Amino acid sequence: MKSKILNLLQMNSNGYLSGEQISGVLGISRTAVWKHINSLKNEGYIIDSVNNKGYKLLSDTSEVNNSSLKSLCNGYEFIQFAKFLDTVDSTNSEAKRIAMDELHLEGIVVADEQTNGKGRLGRQWTSDKNSGLWMSLLIRPKLKPDAASAITLVAAAGMTKALEDCTKLKIGIKWPNDLIINGKKVCGILTEMSAEINQLHYIILGIGVNLNQVNFTESLSDKATSLKKEGAEVSSKQLLGAFLASFSEFYKQFLKGDMSQVIAFHQAHSVTIGKHVQIISPIETREAYVLDINADGSLLVKNDLGENEIVFSGEVSVRGINGYI
Amino acid sequence: MKSKILNLLQMNSNGYLSGEQISGVLGISRTAVWKHINSLKNEGYIIDSVNNKGYKLLSDTSEVNNSSLKSLCNGYEFIQFAKFLDTVDSTNSEAKRIAMDELHLEGIVVADEQTNGKGRLGRQWTSDKNSGLWMSLLIRPKLKPDAASAITLVAAAGMTKALEDCTKLKIGIKWPNDLIINGKKVCGILTEMSAEINQLHYIILGIGVNLNQVNFTESLSDKATSLKKEGAEVSSKQLLGAFLASFSEFYKQFLKGDMSQVIAFHQAHSVTIGKHVQIISPIETREAYVLDINADGSLLVKNDLGENEIVFSGEVSVRGINGYI
Repeated sequence: MKSKILNLLQMNSNGYLSGEQISGVLGISRTAVWKHINSLKNEGYIIDSVNNKGYKLLSDTSEVNNSSLKSLCNGYEFIQFAKFLDTVDSTNSEAKRIAMDELHLEGIVVADEQTNGKGRLGRQWTSDKNSGLWMSLLIRPKLKPDAASAITLVAAAGMTKALEDCTKLKIGIKWPNDLIINGKKVCGILTEMSAEINQLHYIILGIGVNLNQVNFTESLSDKATSLKKEGAEVSSKQLLGAFLASFSEFYKQFLKGDMSQVIAFHQAHSVTIGKHVQIISPIETREAYVLDINADGSLLVKNDLGENEIVFSGEVSVRGINGYI
Repeated sequence: MKSKILNLLQMNSNGYLSGEQISGVLGISRTAVWKHINSLKNEGYIIDSVNNKGYKLLSDTSEVNNSSLKSLCNGYEFIQFAKFLDTVDSTNSEAKRIAMDELHLEGIVVADEQTNGKGRLGRQWTSDKNSGLWMSLLIRPKLKPDAASAITLVAAAGMTKALEDCTKLKIGIKWPNDLIINGKKVCGILTEMSAEINQLHYIILGIGVNLNQVNFTESLSDKATSLKKEGAEVSSKQLLGAFLASFSEFYKQFLKGDMSQVIAFHQAHSVTIGKHVQIISPIETREAYVLDINADGSLLVKNDLGENEIVFSGEVSVRGINGYI
């Protein structure tokens, strides 16, 4: 109910809405309206209350919270639940728990803080309170397990576009799923799936974006950055809103089998094409020169024997050898 | 502790073990030994107790239970926990819950009854109390997600060999993972996985074998059978013991990258090779004639255009059109 009131106030941010109007539209008592308004104020929304006129939203809180998350997610088909948490072990773990209990739901988990945030291959991902956007999308496209790599590309394109919409920074994509500013990582994506041999049960897209950190540990300071450190002030709410809009478009195309815009986006933003990289598989590490990103999302490289070779994201990691991660 | 006492009794089934000997070996009091012996008797083990001689196991219970499961699993590297349940929603679901809580454990779940047993693609799997072997193995090979299909073949070969070791019935394999007696299904395998793009987190091999059902519902009676219906009396304990032994051998080879024996076993037992089948994908259904199973486990067919074509288990289901399922 609180998020519905917030919605009404946001839609009417040019004028005042009386308690009577709100209670009429939502079918609740004026006392209930008053209580919800106070609760919104406690969450950081600045709401002006004037006798005989009513309420007006002067300023949204800048961070995602329970009410604003529900407002932001309104209208997206692939979001049937939106869960906000002050703190969580990791948003991917929470999304997995929901996925196991609710076999058909799709939705989103956002947290202010992760106490055990995870990067790829079990690595730690620092995610302190209010310092970034820590989120996981739980989606259930009816596809084969090998579609998971392509969805990672969709998410990377969506977040890159969102960061460009919210800042003036130049965002690079280190194929397939790290976003880079000035050679340092600002966003990582951890895609996990649960599947049978020939059908996905669900995919969880875990996305972490560093927003407000200024100090990084010594081991991270060469490799990681935040929007603030790069001179951009973006709220988690603003970024999440922009991401949902851009992801939604790319994801719709993907579900129709059309990856052309996503791939073009990757090609245009790649910091990998035209670089010497290391192709790292569980078995060996080899050097290669990256020629292009193919229409199916795989990487076209010239290997150390001088032959053209195709690299699938399901098979290897790529490590740059020119400064970036 | 109870399962350790059972182990001692099984190893000494030719003579009597005194309470003093048992208490000495296990470092527990003679009263504790006596209590555990009584508890084993309550579970159905027939144990002779003679004054001044001690205890002798006259007869094992025929069904898997908590103590016997632990004894059976003793010594297998890929089993670090063994959980027996009288009843469970599904052993795969229980194994998933354990997999999420214990990030490194491998092990096994066996239940007397599944209230919500599952076949592939969410289909129901009837699994009444004491009527079959309902089990799930949780394993964590450090491999890429596409290895899951091959592990299904390993499990199918292991269970086929176990059924041959325990009965004189001719067992057929409907590629990749259904076991057939006289044209009817006696065992199904549901392989589920959790993974990142390029690394498996875990695989759950759910295996259901019909042992004692005599009456099947009308819709199932043409398609399903049980060992008992085919004239063989095999206990769940006997079958599980045989399966763990044969699976363990095939799985060791698989982990070394050697699928040759598993594939040869599939070729020798295939009810699919030399048959006209339907190749069913999410997009279309086509007829084909099966020529062979390839060295990598894929199916070589002649398609309806007369061309040779390779079919991967990750891509299609195969439905026979000559009577079997």
